[in-house]
Amino acid sequence: MNLNADWVVGFVDGEGCFHVGINTHKEMTLGVQVLPEFTVVQHKRDVQLLEALKSFFGCGVVRVNHGDRLAYRVRKLEHLREIIIPFFSKHPLQSKKKLDFELFKSVLLLMEGGVHLRKNGIEEIRSIAIKMNRGLQRESPAKLETN
Amino acid sequence: MNLNADWVVGFVDGEGCFHVGINTHKEMTLGVQVLPEFTVVQHKRDVQLLEALKSFFGCGVVRVNHGDRLAYRVRKLEHLREIIIPFFSKHPLQSKKKLDFELFKSVLLLMEGGVHLRKNGIEEIRSIAIKMNRGLQRESPAKLETN
Repeated sequence: MNLNADWVVGFVDGEGCFHVGINTHKEMTLGVQVLPEFTVVQHKRDVQLLEALKSFFGCGVVRVNHGDRLAYRVRKLEHLREIIIPFFSKHPLQSKKKLDFELFKSVLLLMEGGVHLRKNGIEEIRSIAIKMNRGLQRESPAKLETN
Repeated sequence: MNLNADWVVGFVDGEGCFHVGINTHKEMTLGVQVLPEFTVVQHKRDVQLLEALKSFFGCGVVRVNHGDRLAYRVRKLEHLREIIIPFFSKHPLQSKKKLDFELFKSVLLLMEGGVHLRKNGIEEIRSIAIKMNRGLQRESPAKLETN
């Protein structure tokens, strides 16, 4: 299965998710871990498609998400910075998900400057993260879950 | 907003739905109406995207689906036959939704031969329609609703 760039953008406009998790984590300096991730969740019948995305980007993993759903997921900062962000900067999303991507990108830039290692930096990142996926989160939690 | 064919295929792989409704309808010869439709449902924040799909295909309508969701919808048999089906035959879907499309196409072909106007024809169409969106229908009704 060979995917092309425009198809990937269209599919991610529909099914992709740019997310920044901020989790409690004892071993981190501030007791908090900032976890940006790019995911695409699909029913397991389309596992080949997720594997094709993994090959297309040359990074990430395919894992069980929950129940019958699998996720293609990229968490490594290096891969997000050097592969995922440049790709969607060069091939812009067409949906309002583009706004989430721009916020995601700004969090990654802040992290590159080490902002997430300072207490007020965490708050800055939290204030950006809270704006992401906002419309969906408020109005359709069921959809968000698989998105 | 100018969409290209590969983007459209990717987006429909994620968000599109090929559906054949079989509804009771007093005014029809057999009291049953066969209603094939192609839809793409999005949150209203992406109304421009649905309008862009309408322009891309040069047919269909954008309507409220339910709540905050809008649908781009093609129901006219002529448009399904002459625009939608040829497009996805030329630019194949990459996900398993392709199987739904093939079933959808076979129903349209049967309807062209007038099969839906005969009682045993309706049963033939029903047996095809029941196979469509099957995996999702059984395992994730919530997802189906917005799909």
